[in-house]
Amino acid sequence: MNIPRGFRFSAVNAGVRAPEVRRADMGLVFCEGQAVLSGVFTRNRVKAAPVVVGQELVNRGTARAILANAGNANACTGDQGIHDARLLMDAAARELGVRSDEVVPLSTGVIGIRLPVDRMSIRIPALVSALGDDPEVFARSIMTTDTFPKVVSRAVGNASVIGVAKGAGMIAPDMATTLAVVMTDAVLTKQDLDNIIIKSIERTFNAITIDGDMSTNDTLLALSSNQVIENIADIEKGIADVIRDLALLLVRDGEGATKFVTINVTGAADDREAKKAAMSVANSLLVKTALFGADPNWGRILAAVGYSGVLFDPERVAISISGHRVVERGMESEGFSENTLHTLLKNREICIDIRIGDGPGTFTVYTSDLSYDYVKINSEYRT
Amino acid sequence: MNIPRGFRFSAVNAGVRAPEVRRADMGLVFCEGQAVLSGVFTRNRVKAAPVVVGQELVNRGTARAILANAGNANACTGDQGIHDARLLMDAAARELGVRSDEVVPLSTGVIGIRLPVDRMSIRIPALVSALGDDPEVFARSIMTTDTFPKVVSRAVGNASVIGVAKGAGMIAPDMATTLAVVMTDAVLTKQDLDNIIIKSIERTFNAITIDGDMSTNDTLLALSSNQVIENIADIEKGIADVIRDLALLLVRDGEGATKFVTINVTGAADDREAKKAAMSVANSLLVKTALFGADPNWGRILAAVGYSGVLFDPERVAISISGHRVVERGMESEGFSENTLHTLLKNREICIDIRIGDGPGTFTVYTSDLSYDYVKINSEYRT
Repeated sequence: MNIPRGFRFSAVNAGVRAPEVRRADMGLVFCEGQAVLSGVFTRNRVKAAPVVVGQELVNRGTARAILANAGNANACTGDQGIHDARLLMDAAARELGVRSDEVVPLSTGVIGIRLPVDRMSIRIPALVSALGDDPEVFARSIMTTDTFPKVVSRAVGNASVIGVAKGAGMIAPDMATTLAVVMTDAVLTKQDLDNIIIKSIERTFNAITIDGDMSTNDTLLALSSNQVIENIADIEKGIADVIRDLALLLVRDGEGATKFVTINVTGAADDREAKKAAMSVANSLLVKTALFGADPNWGRILAAVGYSGVLFDPERVAISISGHRVVERGMESEGFSENTLHTLLKNREICIDIRIGDGPGTFTVYTSDLSYDYVKINSEYRT
Repeated sequence: MNIPRGFRFSAVNAGVRAPEVRRADMGLVFCEGQAVLSGVFTRNRVKAAPVVVGQELVNRGTARAILANAGNANACTGDQGIHDARLLMDAAARELGVRSDEVVPLSTGVIGIRLPVDRMSIRIPALVSALGDDPEVFARSIMTTDTFPKVVSRAVGNASVIGVAKGAGMIAPDMATTLAVVMTDAVLTKQDLDNIIIKSIERTFNAITIDGDMSTNDTLLALSSNQVIENIADIEKGIADVIRDLALLLVRDGEGATKFVTINVTGAADDREAKKAAMSVANSLLVKTALFGADPNWGRILAAVGYSGVLFDPERVAISISGHRVVERGMESEGFSENTLHTLLKNREICIDIRIGDGPGTFTVYTSDLSYDYVKINSEYRT
């Protein structure tokens, strides 16, 4: 693991869910010096308190710490929620000896319930004492229905890039509907970092979907400790790679997912149209359930392109699934074999290539299937 | 049952699915005289052959018969599909002694496979011989995953209105994603009938959703045998009532549905915005699975309004569920009880009222929950 200089990590159990649930649910990233801060946030009009506060801090552009919790989203909590977020920022700032407005809050979990600020603030000294070198402890502290912690790193010359994320459900288009923190020690201005992040997310976090839902808390933060001078194009590539790998890990750990599905759309009028078509297929329940059951029902794919709102001539569509040509000129291909397709669909990795015309537009979306377990995970009422 | 004068019905088994599947899968509606014809079709860009042909006939405006089948959609079948549809129209026309271009084709079922026209045309004489007074035999012949036939009727003075439909899955916004035939013996011009249908579907067939998918074959046909003079406003109401009742039956029979859910949005800028918000909630997998599991997780509803693209102030939102006030000013209501909501969500009928502001826009959407059975029905591969 390549850990960038200047960052330390910790986590504690703070009883965010309930005092008796014993797992790490509050995490801290500490920047030993002032870090450059960038970030992107949910486009949901219902924004959690940490999103509202975090957006202000990102606009200012520097940070010394990230204080995160799982189990409670601090969303739909009104002015009280903002107050609670600031109270915890203050407590962490005091303990760390930094300014309160350089502690970025991150929350994920249930909506509409106040943060248990008393239980949480009392644990902040322990959280600060626990600071160490292992980013995975932080990654574990933000997990909700995730089945594994997500940490990715890259070396870029003498610099390093690391990313941690949580996801699993509510992974939707238009910003990743997740929490992610990307850190580097490369020297970057605020403007550099903003540009890199905006460019990197379009075909990564904005190209993945599990269930089409978009959360109130989605946040990707990026920080640079500015300690190592490296070629900026290389750093950009390193950050983009880390962000892409995190996005793919989120899809692999999609709630109840049994398959990893890549959907390439080519030949669209432009990339935006290609994305619209790919997302329509990726979010179709009929496609997702067919993938789960290895049902070689390719008509569902074509139908989902058809209602995507994209202009195209159905009689020019070609579809291949994991290399097997299924549709040509909008009809079943000559060499199509239902058995072959059924067998290919049993694989855990499926690639759907859809050519909808002769335009230059292309887009790739990553998604998962829809299984019984998705329904189970999201319907069970745990009192 | 009030059956309009001038219509007769029949169905036979024609082995559309496979020769060995013994159930009625080809149906006929015969108009004893020339009927006025209206209709609306899927907005999917991938249109099945019967949609392409049917649209031409509706534009002309008269019909003598409807020839329907289940088990095969005759979609993505290219010119051959159009040819096959016309071949069956010819065969029925010959047997009925009418013009071929007055036989309207309707198909539903698997996409991308040619109609078994030989097996079907050989059964057309039997289909014509079987013509009788019972519309339910026709309703049964168009069923796919439906668990019951859908027939609704109304008396309007001396006139009658009857509607039959099939649905179950692929029930989505923007045209009902289903097959439906509405018949009346009231005297109506083509213009009258067109107007009535267009007005009737907006808050009925265009206000229901099961899974957000939209099929290649959706068609609602309306026919008048023009035998009884009645007040046109009364006829309009009768037809609108029949169409609304059919739409609600489709939701009640949604694939795997265990609940019937009404979503009212009020206070939007206009009706279109209200519909957008209501559809976003209705199609959210997280909302649908929470409803299935009676999980009192109201944050998912608010989040789905938030990402609907509708402009509103989250701090002015109020939500009630089956009469229990859950959210006020965007936060959990004072009197909210998790237990009460959990109990209310166990009911088979659930009503979600969402007030998003002070505007005049309102819309009601009808939907179902998402259960294990939805996944089962749509993932099982039946060779």
